[in-house]
Amino acid sequence: MTGRPVVAVLEGATPVRGLERVAEVAEVRVAQAAGLPGALDGADILYLWDYFSGALPAAWHAAGSLRWLHVAAAGVDKLLFPGLVASDVVVTNAHGIFDQPMAEYVLGAMLHAAKGFGPLRDSQREARWAWREGRNIAGSRALVVGTGSIGRHTARLLRAVGVRVEGAGRVALEHDDDFGRVHAAADLARVVPGFDWVVLVAPLTPSTENMMDAEAIGAMKPSAVLINVGRGRLVDEAALTGRLRAGTLAGAVLDTFAVEPLPPENPLWSLPTVLVTPHMASNADSWLDDLAAQFERNFLLWVEGLPLPGVVDKALGYVPSGRPPG
Amino acid sequence: MTGRPVVAVLEGATPVRGLERVAEVAEVRVAQAAGLPGALDGADILYLWDYFSGALPAAWHAAGSLRWLHVAAAGVDKLLFPGLVASDVVVTNAHGIFDQPMAEYVLGAMLHAAKGFGPLRDSQREARWAWREGRNIAGSRALVVGTGSIGRHTARLLRAVGVRVEGAGRVALEHDDDFGRVHAAADLARVVPGFDWVVLVAPLTPSTENMMDAEAIGAMKPSAVLINVGRGRLVDEAALTGRLRAGTLAGAVLDTFAVEPLPPENPLWSLPTVLVTPHMASNADSWLDDLAAQFERNFLLWVEGLPLPGVVDKALGYVPSGRPPG
Repeated sequence: MTGRPVVAVLEGATPVRGLERVAEVAEVRVAQAAGLPGALDGADILYLWDYFSGALPAAWHAAGSLRWLHVAAAGVDKLLFPGLVASDVVVTNAHGIFDQPMAEYVLGAMLHAAKGFGPLRDSQREARWAWREGRNIAGSRALVVGTGSIGRHTARLLRAVGVRVEGAGRVALEHDDDFGRVHAAADLARVVPGFDWVVLVAPLTPSTENMMDAEAIGAMKPSAVLINVGRGRLVDEAALTGRLRAGTLAGAVLDTFAVEPLPPENPLWSLPTVLVTPHMASNADSWLDDLAAQFERNFLLWVEGLPLPGVVDKALGYVPSGRPPG
Repeated sequence: MTGRPVVAVLEGATPVRGLERVAEVAEVRVAQAAGLPGALDGADILYLWDYFSGALPAAWHAAGSLRWLHVAAAGVDKLLFPGLVASDVVVTNAHGIFDQPMAEYVLGAMLHAAKGFGPLRDSQREARWAWREGRNIAGSRALVVGTGSIGRHTARLLRAVGVRVEGAGRVALEHDDDFGRVHAAADLARVVPGFDWVVLVAPLTPSTENMMDAEAIGAMKPSAVLINVGRGRLVDEAALTGRLRAGTLAGAVLDTFAVEPLPPENPLWSLPTVLVTPHMASNADSWLDDLAAQFERNFLLWVEGLPLPGVVDKALGYVPSGRPPG
C-alpha cells in the first residue's frame, strides 16, 4: 500500500460510531448521500453505515479506486446493482452480528403465536378475561428457510428448546449438523405441508424472490404459522393475506414486507392472527456498537492484507455458509 | 382391600376424561358439587377433576372413609382447608403435567417483553410503523422464585437459551443442579436487584403470601420485568401497579391475580407495559388428556399399594422437590 488508505463513510441519520482506531491509520471521510461522490473520489474503502441508502449507484462514477465495500447490514439485495456486481470491489456484510437477535425474535414469534399472546392482548385492551388454551412448541416441527449464519443460529436455538427443525436452502443435504436434513428451496410447496412453522430467513435474490409463492402458501397446514424475518418479497403477500383472511392458516409474524414501511391501508395491519413488527428483528441491545466494532476489526485485517470474514458472493447475492453440499 | 374401591369424582363444567380403566376396577361415582356428599359416602378416593371447586369443606362430613384425594391441578392453596390438613387423607396433585407449558409461557413472556411485542401490537392496531429496538435475553439474569418441579423445568429451559438463572426457595443452597445458586426467599428484597427478570412460580402458602411485598417490588431494577405464573397473592399488587404506573419498572407479564377473573376496573388491564393473561399459562395441547392419564396411572399404583408420585406435604402446602438442602 502506498500512503494512508482512504475510507469513505456513508453516514445517514444515525451518527456513525467507533471510527477512532480506523482514523489513526486511514483518512476517514464521513459523508451524507449528497456528498458521497466527493468522498468516494480516491477512496479505497466504502463503509455503508447507512445500510439502507440507495445513494451508491448515482455516485458509482466516482468509485474508480474502490477496492472494498463493507455494509453494516445482513441483506445486500438493495446494494448489489450491476456496476458493483461486475466490478472487482470486494463486498462484506455484517455477518454474524444479527444471529442472536434474529434467532430470539423467531423463538419469541413462535411462542407469541403458540400461547395466543396476540388475541390475549386484544382481549386485555377490552379488560376481558377470555380464557384460551395455548400450544407447546416442544415437539412441533419448524422449517427454517435459509441456511446462512442467521438460519443456522436460529435452528440451533429452536432445537435447544425441543423444536424439531429442518432446513431449506439452495442445495438439498441429507445430513447437516445444524438442520439435520436440508430440503431444496425449489421444492417448498412439496415440503411445507410437514411443518407447523415456516420460518423465512433467506436473502432476497433472483432465485429466492417469491419462493413462498401462492402454491407454497397454499400448501401450508391450516394450523401452521409463517414467520418472515428475511425479506417481504420472498412471499406472495396477496396469497398469504388471502389465507389469513379466510382463516385457513393459523397466523403469521412478519417483520419485513414487500413495501416498507408497510402502507397504512395494507390489510395485514388489521388481521387479528398477524403480528406486524417494523423491521426490527435484527436490532437489539448493543447492535450499533457491535456493527462499529466489526468494521474496525475488518479494517485492521484489510490493512494487514489478511482475509476478510463475511465476503458476499456477488453472483449468489449472499455470504455462502461455507458448508460443502453433501 | 375388601371389595371394589369406591372413587368419587367431582366433575364441574368440563366433562371428566379417561376413567375407563379405573371403572374396570373401582366403583366410580361422578358428581357435581351438589352431589358430592352423596358420592363421598363410603368413598376411598376423591378425584377433583374440577380443580378450582370450593365444594369440599361443605361435603367433608361425608368423607369419613376417604384415604386418598387427587387434584388435577398444581396449586393446592384453595384445597388445603384445616379438616383435610388434620386428616390422614393422602393428597396428590398434577405433579409434572404443567412443567412444559408453564416453562414455555415464561420464556415466551420474557421474549414478549424483550422484543417489545406488546407496544408493537398496540402500534399495529393503529397501522403505525413505530420502529423500536429489542433486547436480547441471552446473557440476561433471571431469578426463578419457586424450586419445585415447574420452577426447575423453567430454569432448565431458560438456561438452554443462554439466560443466566438463579433460584429462590425456602432453603438457600450454594449449589443446585438446575439453579446453580438458590437464595432464601425470605431475602427477596436483597436478592432481586441483581436480576433482569423475577419469575414467580412458587406455591401460595402462609410463608409465600406477599413474598414480593412493597419492599421487594421496590428493590427491582427499573429495567426489570416481573413474571407471575404462581399465584396473585404472592405479590403486593398495589405496589406493583404503583411502580408500573410510574414507569419505574420496565414491565410485567401476569397470568394470575389476587382476584380472578381480574375485575374490569383493575388498572393492570390498561397499563401498556403489562401483559395480562387469564390464568392459562399451564394449559396447552393435551393437558386434559395428560391429567386423565396421570390419575389413571396413580390409581393403578394405589390399587397395587405402591407409592404415589406427587404427594403434597400438607404442612408445607406443596410437593417438596425432593432435593436435599445442601
